[in-house]
Amino acid sequence: MTLKLYVDRMSHPCREVIIFCKLNGIDFEEVHIDLSKRQQRSPEYREINPIRKIPAIMDGRFKLSESHAILRYLACAFPRIADHWYPTDLYKRAKVESVLDWQRTTFPSGSGSYVFHSVLGPAVGIPLNTKAAARTEKNLIASLALIESVWLQKKGRFLLGSDQPSIADLSLACEIMALEVLDDKDHERILGPFKRVLKWLDDTKNAMAPHFEEVQSTLSNYKEKVQKQRNTVGSKITQSGGKPVLQSKM
Amino acid sequence: MTLKLYVDRMSHPCREVIIFCKLNGIDFEEVHIDLSKRQQRSPEYREINPIRKIPAIMDGRFKLSESHAILRYLACAFPRIADHWYPTDLYKRAKVESVLDWQRTTFPSGSGSYVFHSVLGPAVGIPLNTKAAARTEKNLIASLALIESVWLQKKGRFLLGSDQPSIADLSLACEIMALEVLDDKDHERILGPFKRVLKWLDDTKNAMAPHFEEVQSTLSNYKEKVQKQRNTVGSKITQSGGKPVLQSKM
Repeated sequence: MTLKLYVDRMSHPCREVIIFCKLNGIDFEEVHIDLSKRQQRSPEYREINPIRKIPAIMDGRFKLSESHAILRYLACAFPRIADHWYPTDLYKRAKVESVLDWQRTTFPSGSGSYVFHSVLGPAVGIPLNTKAAARTEKNLIASLALIESVWLQKKGRFLLGSDQPSIADLSLACEIMALEVLDDKDHERILGPFKRVLKWLDDTKNAMAPHFEEVQSTLSNYKEKVQKQRNTVGSKITQSGGKPVLQSKM
Repeated sequence: MTLKLYVDRMSHPCREVIIFCKLNGIDFEEVHIDLSKRQQRSPEYREINPIRKIPAIMDGRFKLSESHAILRYLACAFPRIADHWYPTDLYKRAKVESVLDWQRTTFPSGSGSYVFHSVLGPAVGIPLNTKAAARTEKNLIASLALIESVWLQKKGRFLLGSDQPSIADLSLACEIMALEVLDDKDHERILGPFKRVLKWLDDTKNAMAPHFEEVQSTLSNYKEKVQKQRNTVGSKITQSGGKPVLQSKM
C-alpha cells in the first residue's frame, strides 16, 4: 500500500517530508490538506491526525504526525536510505538529534513565525501582525548567528562538519528557506550578514537538486503572486489616492 | 569517567535529565550552572555548550545539549536501560518521537513560558510579565486538552496507552509539573478541569518515586519562598498601607 502524505506545500514542515521522499525514491500519494480552507480542522482529517496539524502520514494502517518524527521513521522504515540522513552511529545520531531539537526549542518564534506574521498569514486567513513580526525578528537573527558560529563548522559543507546532509540539514534549510517569501530588501537585511548560512543553503539546495527547488517553488510562486497584488494595489493608489487594500509587509 | 550533567534544578528540562539518570542507576556528577547568576553565559560554560543553554552533558569527551537529545542518547548509550523508556520497536519508537516533537512544537508558549512570565522570571532576573502570561495561558489550556483527549487513552496509565512510562511521559510530566509553582488557586483553575491529566501526573510521580518528587522539590521549595515573601509583603501593607514590593502573580 502506497505511503500517504497529508500535506500543504505552503508549510515548511510539509515540504521537508515531501523532499525527503522524493530524494530517497519513496513512492507516495500526496493528499492536499488546504490550510487556507482550514481542512486540517475537518472531521475527515481528524481521523488521520486528531491533533489537527500537518504534516501527517499513513503507512498502511500506521499513522504518524510531527515532521521530525516522520523523517526519523521514514529513514528507518524504508530500505536503502543512505546512512548520512540519520546515522546509525550513536554519537553521530545524538548530534543530529541535538540540532533537530535545538531547531524546535529555538525557532518557534524564528523564521516560520516571522514569515507568518509578516507575509504568509493572509494565505490561511490570519491578518498580518507587524508587532509580532518585530518581536520574532530579534530571535531569528540570534538563531541565524548560532547556526553560523556553532552548527556550521570550518570543515564539511553541512551541519556538524559533515560532508553529506542529514535530516537536520533538510529540516533546518526548509525552515530558513521560508524566508524566501520576503521581498528582496528584507531578505537581504536578515540573511545578508550570514555568509556561511547562505553558502550552506546553496550547498543544501544543490545536494538535494532538483527536488528541493521544485517543492520550494510553491513558495516562490506565492511570493510572485503577493508581489503582483502589491504592484496592482500600488498602481490603484496612484490612480485613486485611496488607501491600500493589502497591508504593508513590515 | 563519570558522566557530567550541567544543570540547574529550577529548569524543567534539567530536572528530566537528572530524574532519568537516578531512575536508571546512571552515575553522574551534577555541575550546577546557576541560571540566576547567568552562569550559562560564562566563558567556561561556553566550552561545554556554545549554544549557552542548559542542560548539557559531557560523557568522556562527548558533549551534548538539548534535553530530548540527551534522553535519547542516555537510553541508548548506557546498559540495562529498560526498553519501555525508548522502545526499539520501530512503530512504538516513532509514536514516542511524535509526542516528544509535539511537546516541542506546542509547549514553547505553554506551561514553561506561562510559569516563567507569571512566577519564575524574577528567579533569573527577568521581571514578571502579566501580558505575556495571559497570551500563553490560552495555548496552555488547549495543549492540556489535547493531552487529555489524544495522548492519554482509555487503556494504559501512560501516554499512548502504555502500561509503562517512556521518556515522553518523563519530559511532558516535568514540563507540566512546572505549574506546581503556581499558587493553589491558579493551579486549580488551569489543571483542575483535566482529570485524566491529573491522574496521569500522579501515576507518573508514583512510577518514578522517590526520584521524581525529590528532584521536583527544588520547585516546591521555591514556591514556599515566594509564598513567604508574598505574606511578608501582605503583612507590611496591612501595617503601613504602602504599595506591595512583590508584583502580583496574575
